[in-house]
Amino acid sequence: MVPPSELMDFLKKEDNFIIATHYSPDADGLGSALALSMALRKLGKKTLLLDRDSVPNQCRFMPGHEEFQTLEAFLSSGSGDFRNLVLVDCNDLTRISSNKSQISNLKFQISAVIDHHESERPFGDIRWIRPDSPATGIMVYYILKELCVEITKELAVNLYAAIAVDTGNFRHANTTADALRIAAEMAGAGAKPHEISMELYESWSDGRFMLFRKALNTLQIEECISIITVTLKMLEETGTTPDDTENLVEFPRIMKKIAVSILFREIGEDHYKVSLRSKGGINVARVAETFKGGGHKNAAGCTVSADIETAKNKVLEAVKSLSS
Amino acid sequence: MVPPSELMDFLKKEDNFIIATHYSPDADGLGSALALSMALRKLGKKTLLLDRDSVPNQCRFMPGHEEFQTLEAFLSSGSGDFRNLVLVDCNDLTRISSNKSQISNLKFQISAVIDHHESERPFGDIRWIRPDSPATGIMVYYILKELCVEITKELAVNLYAAIAVDTGNFRHANTTADALRIAAEMAGAGAKPHEISMELYESWSDGRFMLFRKALNTLQIEECISIITVTLKMLEETGTTPDDTENLVEFPRIMKKIAVSILFREIGEDHYKVSLRSKGGINVARVAETFKGGGHKNAAGCTVSADIETAKNKVLEAVKSLSS
Repeated sequence: MVPPSELMDFLKKEDNFIIATHYSPDADGLGSALALSMALRKLGKKTLLLDRDSVPNQCRFMPGHEEFQTLEAFLSSGSGDFRNLVLVDCNDLTRISSNKSQISNLKFQISAVIDHHESERPFGDIRWIRPDSPATGIMVYYILKELCVEITKELAVNLYAAIAVDTGNFRHANTTADALRIAAEMAGAGAKPHEISMELYESWSDGRFMLFRKALNTLQIEECISIITVTLKMLEETGTTPDDTENLVEFPRIMKKIAVSILFREIGEDHYKVSLRSKGGINVARVAETFKGGGHKNAAGCTVSADIETAKNKVLEAVKSLSS
Repeated sequence: MVPPSELMDFLKKEDNFIIATHYSPDADGLGSALALSMALRKLGKKTLLLDRDSVPNQCRFMPGHEEFQTLEAFLSSGSGDFRNLVLVDCNDLTRISSNKSQISNLKFQISAVIDHHESERPFGDIRWIRPDSPATGIMVYYILKELCVEITKELAVNLYAAIAVDTGNFRHANTTADALRIAAEMAGAGAKPHEISMELYESWSDGRFMLFRKALNTLQIEECISIITVTLKMLEETGTTPDDTENLVEFPRIMKKIAVSILFREIGEDHYKVSLRSKGGINVARVAETFKGGGHKNAAGCTVSADIETAKNKVLEAVKSLSS
C-alpha cells in the first residue's frame, strides 16, 4: 500500500498538525492518531491530538493517550499556531462532533483525511481512503515507512492495538497476511500481543460481565439474524456505562447459523443505538446507511428512533432486504 | 528454532511413519500431525495417521482430517508395514490411550516425540520437547523448512489452525512475534484467517450457545479465581456433548480481576474433568499435576473424583497454595 504523494508532501512540508479522530474513539482511531503524532514529532513537527470524548478505559494503556484534548477544551483555548488538520479513521467533520456549531467553529488551512471506512463523505483537501485496508493503523504504518521513522516500542504498541481491534484480534474477514505480517513486526519491535489483548479484551469489570449475561438472556434469533438488547435499566442494575457494551455484539456470531448479529442499546425513550456485525455475506454498512449511519461492510452502526419492537422490525427488514 | 539433527536424520532416513496425537484431539495436535504427514508423503514416504477419538466437528475443515484412523481400528487391522512412531503434541503413550492393554499392544522400532507441553514423561527414542514453542505446529513448521518442503495451501491451513488454536487466536501469553510471522506466511500461502477462525470459534450450534449461557449462570468468583460448572443434566437439556464444552473456560478470563479460570465438567457420579486457564501469574500445570493431570503453565487439565463441593475446594486450595 503506497500513500499518495500529495499526502506525503503535505506531511513533510507543513510543520504543525491537529490530528483528530472520531468520537466514541476506538483503538484504531486513537492508535493511528498517536502513531502519526509520534512520527511527526520525531521529524521536529508540532502536533495536537483531539477527540470529542475522553479515551475509554480499555485504551488507557496506549502510549501517549493522555495527550488527547477534548474538542471543548480545544475550542475554548483557541487553535494557537495550528493551521492544518489530519483526520484519521473517519472522513468527515460530522464524525468528530455531532454539534453543528462546534463544527462551524473549526477552521483549517489544509485538511487531510486518512481512513478505511466505506461510507464516504466529500470532506478534505487531501483524501486517502482505502476501504480495503484492515485498519487505519496499517495505512499509518505505510506512512511511517515512507517517512523513514524508526518503529519504537511506543509506536509499535499503538499500531498493534489499532490492527488488533479492527480485525477482531485477527478473526474478521479483513485479516490479511499483511495485517499479520505488520502485527508480527510490531511484536518484534516491542508490542506484547498478550498484554495488549488483555487490555483490549480481558479488562472487564464484574459489572460488565453481569451486563453481558443479562444481554445474552435477551437473545432472539430470526433465521440467520441474532438480536440482543441492552436497556438503560440493565446499565443501572449492573453499575455499567455505554462503554461497557463495546464488543457485546460480537458474541452471538459464535453460532454457526448467525450471519448478522445486532445489538440494540437504549439511549433514551424510544431511541436506540444499533450496532451491526456481519460474517461477510451481508454488507451491514448498507443497512446502517438506510438509517443515516455508516461503517464497514462487516461492522456498522446507526441510531433508530422508535419503540423497541418497531425499531427491531425496521432493522430486521433492512437486513432481510439485503440478504434476499 | 532448529530441530535436532537426530530427529531430522530419522525423518529423512526412514520410509514409513505412524503419526499419532493425543486423545480429545485439538487443532494443534491434528494440524501438526497432518502437516507432518503431508510433508513426508511429498518426500515419497508412507504415513498413517492415528488418534483414539474421532476428529471433532470444529476441526473437520482441516485438509486430510478424514485420514485419521482410530486406535481401535488400527489395533484390529495390525500395523502392517509401519515400524516407526512419531508422537506429536504429547510426549507419552498414556496420552494416546488411557487403556493400558491397548498401549501394551503398540510396538515400534523407533519412536520420536515432537511436543511443546511442560509436563514431560520419559517416553521416546528421539525427543524434541520445547515448552517455549507457542504450538507444536510451529515446531513442525521448522521441520518442514529443514525438509525444504513447499508450503501448499493444505499445509498452510493445517499449520495456521494449529498456531491459532494454541495461542487462543493470538491472545495468550505465548503469542510471539514468530507465531504471528509464521501465521502471516501461512496466510500468504493460502490459509484464510477469517474462515479458519469461523470454523474453530464461530461454528457453535444453538444448543452449545444455550449450554454456554447455562454455564455462565453457574459462575462463582473467589478472589481472583472463577469457577463455572457443566453438569451431565445441562448437556442433556441442551442436546450437547462434552466436545461442546471446549473453550467455555476461556470466557470468565475476560474479567480483569480473574487470574485463573476453572471449568468443572461432570463426567460421572462424583467424577469431574477440570480445565484450568491462567493469565500468566499462576502455573496451572503445577495445579493439574497435583491431581495427576498436566499441560502448560497457562492451560492445563486433570480429573478429580469427589462430590462437586469437595472437588471445587480441593482444586481451589491447590490454586491458592501456588498463588500465595
